[in-house]
Amino acid sequence: MPDPSQPLAPALLERILERATTAPSDHNLQPWRFLIVQDPRNRRRLRTAAWNRPEATQAPAIVIVLAYLYPVRTHLQPMLDQAVAEGHCPPEKAAEIRGRAFATLGKLADPEPWASRSAMLAASRLMLAAEELGVSSTMLEGFDEPALRREFGVPDDHAIVRVIALGHEPEPEPTPGRLSLDEVCFSEHFGQPWRP
Amino acid sequence: MPDPSQPLAPALLERILERATTAPSDHNLQPWRFLIVQDPRNRRRLRTAAWNRPEATQAPAIVIVLAYLYPVRTHLQPMLDQAVAEGHCPPEKAAEIRGRAFATLGKLADPEPWASRSAMLAASRLMLAAEELGVSSTMLEGFDEPALRREFGVPDDHAIVRVIALGHEPEPEPTPGRLSLDEVCFSEHFGQPWRP
Repeated sequence: MPDPSQPLAPALLERILERATTAPSDHNLQPWRFLIVQDPRNRRRLRTAAWNRPEATQAPAIVIVLAYLYPVRTHLQPMLDQAVAEGHCPPEKAAEIRGRAFATLGKLADPEPWASRSAMLAASRLMLAAEELGVSSTMLEGFDEPALRREFGVPDDHAIVRVIALGHEPEPEPTPGRLSLDEVCFSEHFGQPWRP
Repeated sequence: MPDPSQPLAPALLERILERATTAPSDHNLQPWRFLIVQDPRNRRRLRTAAWNRPEATQAPAIVIVLAYLYPVRTHLQPMLDQAVAEGHCPPEKAAEIRGRAFATLGKLADPEPWASRSAMLAASRLMLAAEELGVSSTMLEGFDEPALRREFGVPDDHAIVRVIALGHEPEPEPTPGRLSLDEVCFSEHFGQPWRP
C-alpha cells in the first residue's frame, strides 16, 4: 500500500510518463492519453468510482490511462510530417503509409479493441518505468466506468483502459508466483509442449 | 528488419518469455499464452496469414501472443494455493479473493476485452525484455485472424492479441518520434493542460 505521506516528485512523475510514451504502436499512432489525478478532493471522487479501493486516496498520484479511438484522423499526419522532416521516411513512403493506415485502421467498424490494446502497451511501460525508478504501481482493476467518465470529463471517443495508482511503498509486498513457462508456452502449434 | 542468418539462442528466447510472464494481472490470473513459431515451414505459413509481412520469415522466431479467456476456471485455484503455501496470503484472504474473482471476472458476459488487455501487458513486457537483452522486436500488426487460428490450432477460448517477430537487427532502425507530454497528458480533468 503506498505511503500517503510521501508525495511523488513532479520530475519523477514526468519521467515515468515520458517512458510510457515510448511504447510502440501501429503506424506510430500512439493512441493513448494519460489523465493524472493528484488533487486530494479529486482522488476522493475517484475512489468513490473505483469501488472504494483505498489506494485511490493513499497514493499521491493516480493515472487514468485512456485509449484514443481516432488517432488516424488527428495524429497520423503530424507523425508522418515529423518522420519526413527528420529524414527517417521518404515522402513517397509517408504517402503510402498514410494510404494504408486509412484503408485499414480508418475503416474499423469498432476501433475500441485496437486502441485499447495499444494503450495497454503504454500502461505496461508506465508501470515498468515506475518500478525501475523506485515507484510502486498498483492497478485498480475494478471501477465504475460511466461514473469515472462523468467525474473526469472523459469523452466518448476515449476508452478508459486502466487506473494506476503511483506512490512510494514503505514495505514492498511479496511478488505473487507465476505459472511456469511449460504452462503458458507452446511450440509451433497450440497445445504442443514448449520444451520437447 | 531482422537478419535471417542469425538464429535466436534458445536460452535467450527463454529469458525473454520468462520476463514477459512477470507482467501483473488482476488476481494474478495471468491470462496469457505464447505460441512460438520457429520452424521455417511454419513461418512461411504464418507469413501467408500475416499479410505477407517479410519479417514473418526473416525473423528466426515469431511469438503469437494469446489471451486466455477463462483463467478464473483453471488458474485461480493453483495460484491461490501457491500464495497460501508460500505464506504470502492467509487462507481466509485466499477464500475472499476467490469469491471476489468469481463474482466479477467469472461473470463477465464477454471476457475477451479483459483478457486481451491483460495479455497486452505481457506482450509489452516481452518486447521490452527483448530490447533489454539486445533482441529486436517488431509487431506484425495486420493478420488474417481466422487463418492464423486455423493454421496454428488456436481454440476459441483464446484470442490472438499480437504477433511479434524476434530477431537480431543488423542496423537498428531510427526510433520514430513521439507526441509531447503536453499533447497526451491532462491534469485533474480531461482536457486540462498537464503543465499549468
